[in-house]
Amino acid sequence: MIYTDEDTICAISTPAGRGGIAVARISGQRAIDIAQAIWHGKALSDVASHTAHLGTVDDSHGEPLDQAVATVFRAPRSFTGEDVVELSVHGSTYVQRALIAALIAAGARLAAPGEFTCRAFAARKMDLAQAEAIADIIAADSRAAHRLAATQLRGSFSAQLTELRRQLVDLASLLELELDFSEEDVEFASRERLKVLADDIYKVVKHLHDSFSAGNAIKSGIPVAIVGPTNAGKSSLLNALVGDDRAIVSDIHGTTRDTIEEVLAIGDYTFRLIDTAGIRHSDDSIEQIGIQRSLQAIERASIVVVLNDITTALPADSCDMIKRIAGTPDKHVILALSKADLAHNPIDISGLKANLDTPDIVIETITTTRRDGIDSLRAALQSIADDMSNHGVADIMVTNLRHAEALGAAAESTERVISGLRDGIPADLIAEDVRETIAHLSDITGDIPSSELLNTIFSRFCIGK
Amino acid sequence: MIYTDEDTICAISTPAGRGGIAVARISGQRAIDIAQAIWHGKALSDVASHTAHLGTVDDSHGEPLDQAVATVFRAPRSFTGEDVVELSVHGSTYVQRALIAALIAAGARLAAPGEFTCRAFAARKMDLAQAEAIADIIAADSRAAHRLAATQLRGSFSAQLTELRRQLVDLASLLELELDFSEEDVEFASRERLKVLADDIYKVVKHLHDSFSAGNAIKSGIPVAIVGPTNAGKSSLLNALVGDDRAIVSDIHGTTRDTIEEVLAIGDYTFRLIDTAGIRHSDDSIEQIGIQRSLQAIERASIVVVLNDITTALPADSCDMIKRIAGTPDKHVILALSKADLAHNPIDISGLKANLDTPDIVIETITTTRRDGIDSLRAALQSIADDMSNHGVADIMVTNLRHAEALGAAAESTERVISGLRDGIPADLIAEDVRETIAHLSDITGDIPSSELLNTIFSRFCIGK
Repeated sequence: MIYTDEDTICAISTPAGRGGIAVARISGQRAIDIAQAIWHGKALSDVASHTAHLGTVDDSHGEPLDQAVATVFRAPRSFTGEDVVELSVHGSTYVQRALIAALIAAGARLAAPGEFTCRAFAARKMDLAQAEAIADIIAADSRAAHRLAATQLRGSFSAQLTELRRQLVDLASLLELELDFSEEDVEFASRERLKVLADDIYKVVKHLHDSFSAGNAIKSGIPVAIVGPTNAGKSSLLNALVGDDRAIVSDIHGTTRDTIEEVLAIGDYTFRLIDTAGIRHSDDSIEQIGIQRSLQAIERASIVVVLNDITTALPADSCDMIKRIAGTPDKHVILALSKADLAHNPIDISGLKANLDTPDIVIETITTTRRDGIDSLRAALQSIADDMSNHGVADIMVTNLRHAEALGAAAESTERVISGLRDGIPADLIAEDVRETIAHLSDITGDIPSSELLNTIFSRFCIGK
Repeated sequence: MIYTDEDTICAISTPAGRGGIAVARISGQRAIDIAQAIWHGKALSDVASHTAHLGTVDDSHGEPLDQAVATVFRAPRSFTGEDVVELSVHGSTYVQRALIAALIAAGARLAAPGEFTCRAFAARKMDLAQAEAIADIIAADSRAAHRLAATQLRGSFSAQLTELRRQLVDLASLLELELDFSEEDVEFASRERLKVLADDIYKVVKHLHDSFSAGNAIKSGIPVAIVGPTNAGKSSLLNALVGDDRAIVSDIHGTTRDTIEEVLAIGDYTFRLIDTAGIRHSDDSIEQIGIQRSLQAIERASIVVVLNDITTALPADSCDMIKRIAGTPDKHVILALSKADLAHNPIDISGLKANLDTPDIVIETITTTRRDGIDSLRAALQSIADDMSNHGVADIMVTNLRHAEALGAAAESTERVISGLRDGIPADLIAEDVRETIAHLSDITGDIPSSELLNTIFSRFCIGK
């Protein structure tokens, strides 16, 4: 779509704004010529690849603009696989604009978002999943999110997919063998053996698919809903939780998000604390809307903190609401009991626990004035996050919706393979589902070089048979 | 102060925030060793200067952090004159923080603001005026502001100061000659000739000093006050002026400034439009505060746009106020007449013009609904800005208060030289003022290597003589 290798593209590759230096990247067949057109210094066409040179660049009027260091990367030894020149200049907003204008005047085109990476993919420097990991690396703002993206960029996910495809090709080959000898009515490969193979594939595909919920939460910040009766002290808890981290967090995130109150960093993780209204039975329609919102917040959250005033139990019907929504495998519930220091007549917690179907973690002494309760809650959040990050296959967690959807489709077609093998469906029909599974997995890495391989395998399966 | 050459310093040199790539710069004796400590790739101690290498960097836990390109610049062929390694990594906020943490763990220290440039100055890669120009280049957001800083960085200003110092040394030598033969009561160099020399020096010094007002305005954005009666349509004019540029401008400037309403880019210049309250005679104390603010705005402005409703003349006392404040050599006044399209009985403009002591430019047909009036005003602003940029010496305008103050002091001591020559003051006393002038000019470039030269010249002037 955006890839036309005749154009030479340019863009400022460093963050927007003002800084000591900024780097403009130029990539394409004419990269060196275009850079040379605005360059005074050693002739860039003469210099060796991977060398840096001090000189000056002109603006689009041909007047001296700035001192610059030009680094030349010759094809194919560059990020994009094309000739690349990086111009490092003073990082003023004016110099950045004027430099790009000069490069465009000299014949470059402003790069579309992601176009350098797109060219790297087209040059087979990386597969599609790795290319997508670059965007995730850049967006990562916690150690955990960075690790997931870095693992994907290093190709661990792609290697896992390659292994799955290899197993599927094996499966197809065995089915093919059965097909070749079908006249003789001999089942060459034991269908039982094929089913074990398909089961193994299914398990990994399903596991990868299921890691998306936790993977996506870790990538985007783990959503935490704090729910409970209006007077349980939710706001104080939120403030105490965020406390000292607020400054650090606002440094990390440039923009506020409408539906999220606070962002909190604990250990390697980023948590997004979702504000909720108090939950209680009400006939007031305005209040009903607020309660509805709280329930939606619970729905979005990976972790639900039920904050309950120790002196007054959450009504059973509120517990039912929370339980109904939070009682899914992907949700974690923390029961936190507030105002323990004020309670002369604490309620019976066991009833509350039972009403919540036994929460994952119970913290009995949350008080916003005592640090230990808050620390326990932070530790509980971190422990659940650690637990979430173990939901992948080895170090791999799926964090990309496109990948999750492809894996979901692959899991479905693998299920059909399994039931086909069980129900004695003819080999050619099962092979169709194997082919479909391979195609879904290939969609993720974006390489269909196996299309030839697939042809070799599936060409014998004529239409209608 | 901040310069201790034993430390190896590091910092992210690219703008803060998220981008395709970010560059960490490491400078100092241990730069290569420290980079090597977190580096996997070709050994950086073995590579040639000015070469770039692909590898990976570890975080402070020794775990793989990111792919990186390391470019090595060996002393003295680097920006700072020391060994420098630049590490180009993915521009995520997390990677940037983790990379700096890893470099600090490996033995680097976080650089103080400007410390790389400070080291470049210490290594005599540039003089003080050039070092200061780097900060101005980075802050520049218009072509005009950039040009002033770039001229200073290229050393034109420094060369001009060197030439002035050379002339002053000549002057001192001639005075010295007179001193040597003073016993013989012979004035060797004609004092008239010396006075011509001193006059020439004074003119250039004074001219440079006087360029600060315009130079500083061009550097920081030319302040424009729009004043006039409350109902003259100032707000509409401001909106019409800024109009389409608002988006561009907000892209350039990250922060809003309290006292300034709008920033406007016309041609090579940035203008800062200062909001003012309507000016009219009032006994109301609140209104008086508003009017006082308007007068302060006029005081700060380089250009005062007097917007007057054509149907009702600005009262003579208001004109007086404007005239009193705007009637200085550095201020430019534009008289703009609004609502010309509505006027059946336009006032007599000649009276208003006379009241304003003949403004620089009169625009007779400002209406915010007609584009041509606004275009005339934009052209008028640009024309005045062009005029302001011709107030320098060749391409040089002083934009730095420190330089302006040093030049002001140099102008004063040169004046004393001139009056000394005129009044027959003894040569040794005049030479004191010459020495002072040289010292003021040397303060600007921060190099006193002429201190030896000065010693040679002035050592003969013993105390009390």
